[in-house]
Amino acid sequence: MRRLCVHTITTKPLSLEECLVEFPRRGISGITIWRQALEGRDLEAVARQTREAGMDVVSLCRGGFFPSASTAGRQAAIDDNLKAIEQAHAVGAPLIVLVCGAVPGQPLAESRKQITEGIAALLPAAEQAGVKLAIEPLHPMYADDRSAVNTMRQAHEICDALGSPKSIGIAVDVYHVWWDPELKAQIDHAGQTGRLHAFHICDWKTPTTDLLNDRGLMGEGCINIREISDWVDATGFTGHREVEIFSNRWWSVDQSQFLDQIAASYSQLYS
Amino acid sequence: MRRLCVHTITTKPLSLEECLVEFPRRGISGITIWRQALEGRDLEAVARQTREAGMDVVSLCRGGFFPSASTAGRQAAIDDNLKAIEQAHAVGAPLIVLVCGAVPGQPLAESRKQITEGIAALLPAAEQAGVKLAIEPLHPMYADDRSAVNTMRQAHEICDALGSPKSIGIAVDVYHVWWDPELKAQIDHAGQTGRLHAFHICDWKTPTTDLLNDRGLMGEGCINIREISDWVDATGFTGHREVEIFSNRWWSVDQSQFLDQIAASYSQLYS
Repeated sequence: MRRLCVHTITTKPLSLEECLVEFPRRGISGITIWRQALEGRDLEAVARQTREAGMDVVSLCRGGFFPSASTAGRQAAIDDNLKAIEQAHAVGAPLIVLVCGAVPGQPLAESRKQITEGIAALLPAAEQAGVKLAIEPLHPMYADDRSAVNTMRQAHEICDALGSPKSIGIAVDVYHVWWDPELKAQIDHAGQTGRLHAFHICDWKTPTTDLLNDRGLMGEGCINIREISDWVDATGFTGHREVEIFSNRWWSVDQSQFLDQIAASYSQLYS
Repeated sequence: MRRLCVHTITTKPLSLEECLVEFPRRGISGITIWRQALEGRDLEAVARQTREAGMDVVSLCRGGFFPSASTAGRQAAIDDNLKAIEQAHAVGAPLIVLVCGAVPGQPLAESRKQITEGIAALLPAAEQAGVKLAIEPLHPMYADDRSAVNTMRQAHEICDALGSPKSIGIAVDVYHVWWDPELKAQIDHAGQTGRLHAFHICDWKTPTTDLLNDRGLMGEGCINIREISDWVDATGFTGHREVEIFSNRWWSVDQSQFLDQIAASYSQLYS
């Protein structure tokens, strides 16, 4: 369990304070904080509370959404990401996960150019704050309005274009990349280049009834999670395995029971 | 309009006989017949009716679904595809579109091996009947249970593995492949290898509310249809542009008005 992390969005009905009680009670050692969970809170108090709860803050979710049809829109995105870097620094999160963004109808190549420029604008502040950034390739079904970065290969290409600074890497989420025939090779390459910054798990249900909020708990679907996880570990990755599940179904049940099932499912997966 | 084809599934509420009246009335010159539209019908009569209506039968949809956990299941799939070849021959369809199949939890590489073997088993009968086959790469969101072939690159690899017989090629559907950064290169390669057998159009809506049945009419979404279509034509492709739309929304409206809108949208796209 020492590598198990849960995202606050996974148990969306719980407040951050409730997460900090319920997670460690089950031996969950890491927490990834979504920015909405910070709303109205004193960030130094959050940092202290997570420390007192014995939790590692694994990352802050999420930055990104760089592309825009207007210069002003792109600058607003950069400003918001700079704020996220401050927040990450304040709560002690060493990493920000980037959902890079896309604009429906704007050519994907243009969006990727804007994403690269957006990240470049953040790097000095990120390095100064000691906060790393991770490009999360999103499933191609989100290429319309969530991310023009849909494969690990594309994420690597952006890292290359940025000159491969140590602060920029990749977040591998099995939900987004499990189908990719290049997956093992790209994970290996991420290991070799020091870019493997985060690893997210959940499952793909058959049928999936909602493009956003019908993810499965590990074991409920068809993803070869353990195999992908072993590829990740084989690169030398020793970070947390982060459970990130968006699910109207799971959000509607008692979250205490859901957390019990997450812990049980995780234990079975890694037994 | 001489290159406009509509799939019978696009106007699912209409019978085949109604399609054969309503399509030519709007100058639609091609029809792709889904197998369920043939149920209970005499195939020679269908061939005669389409000829009399002045319609080109562009293809038969759909064969495929080769992978199975059992040998018996894979043989049943081959038998069903052999029947599809007979049907295509009988109605005068020169092409069968293959939705290749996948089994949830079975490794995708194993499914692709079974797909390759299944197609190999069909080739003699297809060649004898003068019916071509087209692998349709499906969007990665269908990798769980509909197709382990999710990119044009993978479709090419299967054609290569089969020894590149002329009877096997690729059906390009913008809905499935628009996000692929290799798309233009893979279309070019399909042209160079004589594999570009079919071209399907529709649009990707934002938001998409159903993984299967929420496709958009051309112009309703974000796909660069005309650009992709121009890439296809640049290879020398002169075949039909096939409108294939699965949409609970469009199926619920008057199909006569829907066909008017298809014709108008097509005319605008290619004006």
